[in-house]
Amino acid sequence: MNALARLGMVSETPSENQTIAAEPAKDYFVERDGQKFAGMHLLIDLWGATNLDSPELIDETLCAGAVEAGATILHSHFHHFTPNGGVSGVVVLAESHISIHTWPERNFAALDVFMCGCCDPYKVIPFLQAAFAPTSIQLDEQRRGLVV
Amino acid sequence: MNALARLGMVSETPSENQTIAAEPAKDYFVERDGQKFAGMHLLIDLWGATNLDSPELIDETLCAGAVEAGATILHSHFHHFTPNGGVSGVVVLAESHISIHTWPERNFAALDVFMCGCCDPYKVIPFLQAAFAPTSIQLDEQRRGLVV
Repeated sequence: MNALARLGMVSETPSENQTIAAEPAKDYFVERDGQKFAGMHLLIDLWGATNLDSPELIDETLCAGAVEAGATILHSHFHHFTPNGGVSGVVVLAESHISIHTWPERNFAALDVFMCGCCDPYKVIPFLQAAFAPTSIQLDEQRRGLVV
Repeated sequence: MNALARLGMVSETPSENQTIAAEPAKDYFVERDGQKFAGMHLLIDLWGATNLDSPELIDETLCAGAVEAGATILHSHFHHFTPNGGVSGVVVLAESHISIHTWPERNFAALDVFMCGCCDPYKVIPFLQAAFAPTSIQLDEQRRGLVV
């Protein structure tokens, strides 16, 4: 977690009479399947996709997917290119980000979904399928900041 | 190119007497080393890095790197987390994006540099070295939207 979740972890207020021991430094890396790492990064290529020229639909879709994945949205920005209608943009999350770049003339979109903490980036994928109806998806998973 | 470069490609004004043939649809994918693809995506992990708690320095560094790489900046946004000082943010480019997430308590930062068109994402790396002095860098290159 590198975000609001982090804030959550330090928001506890001790009672007046409680003795506070010197705490060890917090560690925001996660552990899963015996590995310790900073976060999960999915690179997602959509082919044969539609609705890639609508910044409103893209914004809505990525934000809904982020919330379903358990993330907290801090900021979003989408740019609509003319005359081809491609869209580039990003949702900055408390737990990292989602980005998208679309090439409507090729029915292609490149996304990346990077999430730390207990979020599940895979939960974004059904939202992409529902909004853009790709005929195929290429997916690559990277564990960023893997401690070896 | 999915951006301003794209605009540049359609800005030519024909002379008055010129006959304009029906143009084939523009293709914004790039060709390099015999491959055709949408853009180059670098995943960069910095270890043993410093200055990871300064949104101002990070903003300055990523924007300077983007310009050196030949990109055009459309938007940038950086969030500074407390109490740990981590920074999350993104520079949206006409040619895609640069993102960063930092864990100062581990001297670790995860970046991604995605660039289309004739930009060279590798030109961002010396700016990262100068600003954050990492003791090691892990680099992964992905060609997004590879046409097979």
